[in-house]
Amino acid sequence: MKNPEEVKAPKLPKKTAAEKRLLGRRTLLRGALFSAGAAAAGVGVAHADDSVGANAPEWMKTPGRPFSGYGVPSKWQERVQRIYAIAPGRDGTGSSRTPLHLLEGTITPGGLHYERHHNGVPDIDPAQHELFIHGLVKRPLAFSLEALMRYPMETRIYFVECSGNSGIFAQPQPAQVTAGDLNGLLSCSEWTGVRLATLLGEAGVTREAKWVVAEGADAAAMSRSVPLEKCLDDAMIALFQNGEAIRPEQGYPMRLLLPGYEGNMNVKWIRRLNVTDVPVNARDETSHYTELMPSGKARQFMFALGVKSIIVKPSFGITMKGPGLYEISGLAWSGGGHITKVEVSTNGGATWSRAALTEPVLPKAVTRFRLPWQWDGKPSTLMSRATDNTGDVQPTRANWVAQFAPGQFYHFNGIQIWGIDADGTVKNVYA
Amino acid sequence: MKNPEEVKAPKLPKKTAAEKRLLGRRTLLRGALFSAGAAAAGVGVAHADDSVGANAPEWMKTPGRPFSGYGVPSKWQERVQRIYAIAPGRDGTGSSRTPLHLLEGTITPGGLHYERHHNGVPDIDPAQHELFIHGLVKRPLAFSLEALMRYPMETRIYFVECSGNSGIFAQPQPAQVTAGDLNGLLSCSEWTGVRLATLLGEAGVTREAKWVVAEGADAAAMSRSVPLEKCLDDAMIALFQNGEAIRPEQGYPMRLLLPGYEGNMNVKWIRRLNVTDVPVNARDETSHYTELMPSGKARQFMFALGVKSIIVKPSFGITMKGPGLYEISGLAWSGGGHITKVEVSTNGGATWSRAALTEPVLPKAVTRFRLPWQWDGKPSTLMSRATDNTGDVQPTRANWVAQFAPGQFYHFNGIQIWGIDADGTVKNVYA
Repeated sequence: MKNPEEVKAPKLPKKTAAEKRLLGRRTLLRGALFSAGAAAAGVGVAHADDSVGANAPEWMKTPGRPFSGYGVPSKWQERVQRIYAIAPGRDGTGSSRTPLHLLEGTITPGGLHYERHHNGVPDIDPAQHELFIHGLVKRPLAFSLEALMRYPMETRIYFVECSGNSGIFAQPQPAQVTAGDLNGLLSCSEWTGVRLATLLGEAGVTREAKWVVAEGADAAAMSRSVPLEKCLDDAMIALFQNGEAIRPEQGYPMRLLLPGYEGNMNVKWIRRLNVTDVPVNARDETSHYTELMPSGKARQFMFALGVKSIIVKPSFGITMKGPGLYEISGLAWSGGGHITKVEVSTNGGATWSRAALTEPVLPKAVTRFRLPWQWDGKPSTLMSRATDNTGDVQPTRANWVAQFAPGQFYHFNGIQIWGIDADGTVKNVYA
Repeated sequence: MKNPEEVKAPKLPKKTAAEKRLLGRRTLLRGALFSAGAAAAGVGVAHADDSVGANAPEWMKTPGRPFSGYGVPSKWQERVQRIYAIAPGRDGTGSSRTPLHLLEGTITPGGLHYERHHNGVPDIDPAQHELFIHGLVKRPLAFSLEALMRYPMETRIYFVECSGNSGIFAQPQPAQVTAGDLNGLLSCSEWTGVRLATLLGEAGVTREAKWVVAEGADAAAMSRSVPLEKCLDDAMIALFQNGEAIRPEQGYPMRLLLPGYEGNMNVKWIRRLNVTDVPVNARDETSHYTELMPSGKARQFMFALGVKSIIVKPSFGITMKGPGLYEISGLAWSGGGHITKVEVSTNGGATWSRAALTEPVLPKAVTRFRLPWQWDGKPSTLMSRATDNTGDVQPTRANWVAQFAPGQFYHFNGIQIWGIDADGTVKNVYA
């Protein structure tokens, strides 16, 4: 796709901009915003009726290409890629990010789901892979993929977010990068698999059981201790992602899914579940994924991710094309439940308006919010603030930093701010 | 992936099969089916605890592969492809089918969405493409992709189904092919775009307006007449599919989406909307997509797709591995609204049990249904019967054929039957 700047300008002068205002979500939901014509975006170009049939584009003059077994995006979308940089000598360790600013809706396509690997993506032969359940169980078991496919399954839409997502906001200066660079360790998929409670029920946990140590079949043997209570709640051994077999980067042939818990606990390429009475203090929960507090002590075992929202439209890298109607749109989610409210401010928090939430609003899934906005062309300051069904409200960045910085950068969920200049450029700002 | 036959057999004898029965959906929803151990699938293999940590698989011994910009499925999933055969000399005309029997959940991954092309897939430069709205409007308009991106959007999950889907059931003998071959002209995606009512509101339709003729920018200039009422209801100009730009095979850079209406009306690569007072009787609604009735007259303009369900697990090509617990699972949908009930029979319709419906159950979207089943190893006859919120009930094949055959094969929505033999093979049967 060409840069927006290269797209030809509308042929007619734009309509006079209406007074700057946030338009109510009820108006949007009725779809009546434009039918009166009064507040029209004015970006459609008036057109002489009799020329429509003529001048067919070249691609209507020759047959198109035939069918394909497994489709890929248009070649014009080549810039829509995961965002990453490989570290020399350790090219399988790190992360890639979902380009949230280039996407829409709530589902992340499998090819763009974020990655976080501790020693690369293993190439697992599914016929050789087994899931073991052992430790404090009455009957240690091994499950092949074929065996798991026999069990009753569940299908649910959940987000997965790395605990390090948005950690860059702990830095003293705002980074001038895209919403995907800032927040792209977040993706959302439809997952299908077997409830972990079902499998633990087959093995029969003993009375002493309190924890389950999950280990991946990657070259890092990524391991985390998970409270048994979570494993018996909504945890799943996921086999499918957005309808097809789970992708290699997300754990093919199977991963642990702990809805709402920090990403690394959702152990990919899951190989064994060792039922124990205490957490094992694995490398990945001592050297990683702990948080140094101002007191000098470290926090460990922060599981659920906080309530959070981000505006992706407009955002850094998207230049506003003069005064007029725009849609403010973004994503909200909470590890604690479902989103009940997203408020948007265009004046730095002086006033707030409620955004429309895309239905269905699901627990521990991403919710898309939208609010139409008449921009008057003056400098503006955009913020979003989410609330979940437990009553948790997204904090300001200042409040978050005062509580956790400078030692912590995990679990950042503070309000983010886009500053819009009169020339339409969008910047990451802290106030 | 290996054939199921090549996967090594469980090392322990299977548990004695419980009495054959359909287990209630409430039992499944509680997740208590297995916790007592009584009805266990018995397909997990008992395991000696002390050998789990040893014998790490080879892929744990070397670093895995690094990050990628746009991911693809595992190489072990290469057989999971759309199903199609190219006709010599007209390789862009026809269809490819979603392999429903190899998928799970409700979302169809973009790479496996079914295709139906009338002259191939055009390669459209999005910066050169415009959507025209003209005819009986006050202000003819042209919208670039950039212009459309400015408008408020909506995100909704909808199925798209070709009117010819499952037409093979109109034949007198049951075809012995997979559920994807039979019914794979059906897919379901999360679509994001601009409400068509918004754009028609911008143009301002006149009082004479009753129809909208939609034309695609493919080399067939695929055209259909759509009632204005539908265009002002839930119709959308879709720009995104499962979060990313709409795929070329589904209309990149934009398609008309008419939720619940037969697939071909959801004109891909949408180029213009000509507002008229009468339908134009375009080639694609006279030479195609009409139905010869027993009376000798042809039906035209059958828009909404009927209530329908199919069982995909088990289905043709999946061999049952002896008596024991299985999950019966399938898809249900209706062009008229949302699914309220799916009943399953394992004895050819003598008795029926209600299946669990995967939440959220959305209008004009695919709903996954599931029911655990203890197979006793005897010949069985599996059927599913869906009901929607308008009260419509899926008819038997015999009733459908009596009403429409032999001239019609579009809009088949009759009940389908899988016959299971004692050896576990699954066949397509008519009674």
